[in-house]
Amino acid sequence: MTCTAELVDYLLKSRPDAIPADVRHDGKRALLNVVGCALGGARHPAMDIAIDALSPFAGPPTCAVIGRPERYDPLFASLLNGISSHVHDYDDTLPKNYIHASSPVASALLAYASVNKVSGPDFLHAFILGFEVVSRIGNATYPAHYEAGWHSTGSIGVFGAAVAVGKLLGLDAERMTYAIGLAATQAAGLREMFGSMGKGFHPGRSAQSGYMAALLAQKGFTSGRFPLESPRGFAAVTAAKYDLSKVVDRLGVDFDLRVNTYKPYPSGIVIHPTIDACTQLREQYSLKPEEIESVELRVAPLVKDLCNKKVISAGLEGKFSIYHAAAIGLGRGRGALEDFTDEAVNDPPLKRLREITDAIGDPSVSEDAVVIKLQLKDGRTLHKTLEGSLGNLKRPLSDAQLETKFRDQATVLPPAQREAAMAACWSVETLGDSRELIDRCIPA
Amino acid sequence: MTCTAELVDYLLKSRPDAIPADVRHDGKRALLNVVGCALGGARHPAMDIAIDALSPFAGPPTCAVIGRPERYDPLFASLLNGISSHVHDYDDTLPKNYIHASSPVASALLAYASVNKVSGPDFLHAFILGFEVVSRIGNATYPAHYEAGWHSTGSIGVFGAAVAVGKLLGLDAERMTYAIGLAATQAAGLREMFGSMGKGFHPGRSAQSGYMAALLAQKGFTSGRFPLESPRGFAAVTAAKYDLSKVVDRLGVDFDLRVNTYKPYPSGIVIHPTIDACTQLREQYSLKPEEIESVELRVAPLVKDLCNKKVISAGLEGKFSIYHAAAIGLGRGRGALEDFTDEAVNDPPLKRLREITDAIGDPSVSEDAVVIKLQLKDGRTLHKTLEGSLGNLKRPLSDAQLETKFRDQATVLPPAQREAAMAACWSVETLGDSRELIDRCIPA
Repeated sequence: MTCTAELVDYLLKSRPDAIPADVRHDGKRALLNVVGCALGGARHPAMDIAIDALSPFAGPPTCAVIGRPERYDPLFASLLNGISSHVHDYDDTLPKNYIHASSPVASALLAYASVNKVSGPDFLHAFILGFEVVSRIGNATYPAHYEAGWHSTGSIGVFGAAVAVGKLLGLDAERMTYAIGLAATQAAGLREMFGSMGKGFHPGRSAQSGYMAALLAQKGFTSGRFPLESPRGFAAVTAAKYDLSKVVDRLGVDFDLRVNTYKPYPSGIVIHPTIDACTQLREQYSLKPEEIESVELRVAPLVKDLCNKKVISAGLEGKFSIYHAAAIGLGRGRGALEDFTDEAVNDPPLKRLREITDAIGDPSVSEDAVVIKLQLKDGRTLHKTLEGSLGNLKRPLSDAQLETKFRDQATVLPPAQREAAMAACWSVETLGDSRELIDRCIPA
Repeated sequence: MTCTAELVDYLLKSRPDAIPADVRHDGKRALLNVVGCALGGARHPAMDIAIDALSPFAGPPTCAVIGRPERYDPLFASLLNGISSHVHDYDDTLPKNYIHASSPVASALLAYASVNKVSGPDFLHAFILGFEVVSRIGNATYPAHYEAGWHSTGSIGVFGAAVAVGKLLGLDAERMTYAIGLAATQAAGLREMFGSMGKGFHPGRSAQSGYMAALLAQKGFTSGRFPLESPRGFAAVTAAKYDLSKVVDRLGVDFDLRVNTYKPYPSGIVIHPTIDACTQLREQYSLKPEEIESVELRVAPLVKDLCNKKVISAGLEGKFSIYHAAAIGLGRGRGALEDFTDEAVNDPPLKRLREITDAIGDPSVSEDAVVIKLQLKDGRTLHKTLEGSLGNLKRPLSDAQLETKFRDQATVLPPAQREAAMAACWSVETLGDSRELIDRCIPA
């Protein structure tokens, strides 16, 4: 069997009770986190602009949008859920391939399940399958695909949305193949968008495109039959090197939800060690920003490649600035939502800290680490090395920490509704209709 | 100035009267041809399926769809116009880069102009600009982008739709940059779809995505500022080799509409020499199919790479089968719409002809040529070499031939309306509102 055929075969055969209990729990953690992010991003200007620009063309208002009172058609709602859940760069990350897999998958599923009755177990199952497909195609094409400049959360996320919706639609093997094919041929998203609203657009557009792929496939819209593996298929076209055995090996046994991570800071994950270490330095030495003369960061070359934005004016750019990471850690001792706003990046003390910070790409430093040298005005030199920042696989956020993060973000909901929404995520497997969860995420 | 900035500057400054008269005439030829193709494809099963699957999610029915009585929102109408105008593979081709540039651009414009008053001169101007942008980005990334496996009609067509709609929206420089950026980050379309409905989907989806990019940009949805030229931008990510000077050199002086070609046969253009030469052989020797023992075709390696489908069952596959090209030329002496249906490819005499045909990739044969050796059962061997098939730049279809092709395709319209639609294409520059053209393309 080809890679696509083998994957399709697994997707068709998988049943909710075939998913191990620990993976189901990890699925609920991911769901809780991504719903929280969607609530937190629901009022971001990118959402208001997208609604202003596109809502005149939306279809019948049947579908809820997480964190918003408006209703739209489910395809447009998928786009909006994807923007809100990724725009703060606060959603989950797979350290194996840097994909934020939950957003494109959940964004489509939350829209689908708002307009179709889907039981809680089926919802969670489809989410876990979609997540797994994204991560596996990511593993198979990493690092070549990502290094080429693709933002894989978009360019690979589309597959997860397609198969998750396709699973709920009950597509047969031929049509699930078309769904994957029509997803492959809509795969898009460039890293050039980092630091702009275009980045948040990616999981939204891939949720919408994947959902559309499944709908077209259901009705018999045909695609090529070997979308992943053919010489003109997704892997060969978008990755100089790939290994498609990683898509299918140990399917149903290994689940990448087990190695998913959750962000304590709303920014590109590779600047987390710097925020973390600078915050620790500030505390340890009771530093005042004005005492600092210069900052030297040694980081992995990929970190510099991704986050070398020094002269910035937009909050979204701050999320991809290793200099801003040092500035907020040293200047404010934290990295919260309000430290990545337009106001924050234009704050003079933070600006000065960015300017006196230098970053050096060093292949001996791992991607989840930073080596810091701080020169103080009084002549002292401080050193700090941090390996493995908060939220990584060795220091994962606990369920309770995820709940705190959810509460902090879900301010569009009254406190009691916030708790009810969280409870519905944790108990999704007991819901007869996953609309019970969705309804709790809609402000009055 | 960067490539994107220079392109944006040109697009903002260009006025209808700056386009040379011969280019405007070529623009009208392209418009006539693509509208005819959209009329010819309007009843294709791919259209019915797309409507069946997606119309429940369409917005307010304000916008006409070429060749159909239904109305939808303009974004969905863009998708449909793109599918219909490309699904028969009968639209135009730029031999420099194999892009079918009219479909993605016109599909978006015809939708935009159905819901907004656009004067005929402005419509033609936007079409010419969009076409030019597609072809130039195509030239800059050809052949690496295409050879990698991208179907550039989709992956590059999206830029043309975005700038054409952006021009009519009157975007300023910053927002036109965002439109190009949001187009770049939706660029998609794999050659693996060739022979399936997924191919026709490409210009439709790129028309829709480009239109959406312009709408989002208009309201201030931000993108990266260097979408074409940055290390993580479109060119670097999708082409191993590229030369962006081809996007901007002699802008406003050279126009690729002058080197656009029109197909006499509804199929991949590289099999046209084979259809043409086999038709000529059949006539010249009054051949009966059953007299033929074997057929040997020598074609350029790219031709074999693109059209090596021998065992086929769908009409759409026949459009990318060099074997089917020989079969219809020898077996029927023509290559019309009815020779690329499911029935035609399953016709036993044509099937036998495909089976006895062999194709050899030969680098000494040009992409617009074929060398044929025919073995007859009576022992005779016939030879034919054809260089430059009908429709190519040296043997272009005349305006009258384009009109005949339009009439043959536009059977969804009564004869008098067909003539009126053609007349509106030729006289588009005199129309106060291009809806006069669009209205004539809608069956009662």
